[in-house]
Amino acid sequence: MKTQEQKKFGARQRLAKNLRALRARNGLSQEALADLVGLHRTYVGSVERSERNVSLDNIEKLAEALKIDISNLLAESSP
Amino acid sequence: MKTQEQKKFGARQRLAKNLRALRARNGLSQEALADLVGLHRTYVGSVERSERNVSLDNIEKLAEALKIDISNLLAESSP
Repeated sequence: MKTQEQKKFGARQRLAKNLRALRARNGLSQEALADLVGLHRTYVGSVERSERNVSLDNIEKLAEALKIDISNLLAESSP
Repeated sequence: MKTQEQKKFGARQRLAKNLRALRARNGLSQEALADLVGLHRTYVGSVERSERNVSLDNIEKLAEALKIDISNLLAESSP
């Protein structure tokens, strides 16, 4: 489990971390963000737990909802 | 067609443009890049034509093969 998590450190973990930080900064619940993006609340939750291999189109929708450039949403340091 | 293309301008187009530029800079054919990443040549071609809703895991693999940070692979100006 730990090994798998460490192996996964990278894009999924970055997106999860940045998404959580930006959602909080925008004062949005998972449900509110999900509504903005047209996805289900459980989908947003699974992205924030690095469980999901999100598609580019959905990453773009999340970036738009959070008013951030998609490249910043995947940046190593929190945007 | 044009309207759809314009609507799609964004993440897919950026990835396509940057991928083409970086692949050329690394002197890699679509096939050679595909081999590095473990994907099919036609897959790489479809990404470069903005046809594919690429998953985060595959974007990460492409970035690794091109020795670039994933956020730069999605940057607006060519990395």
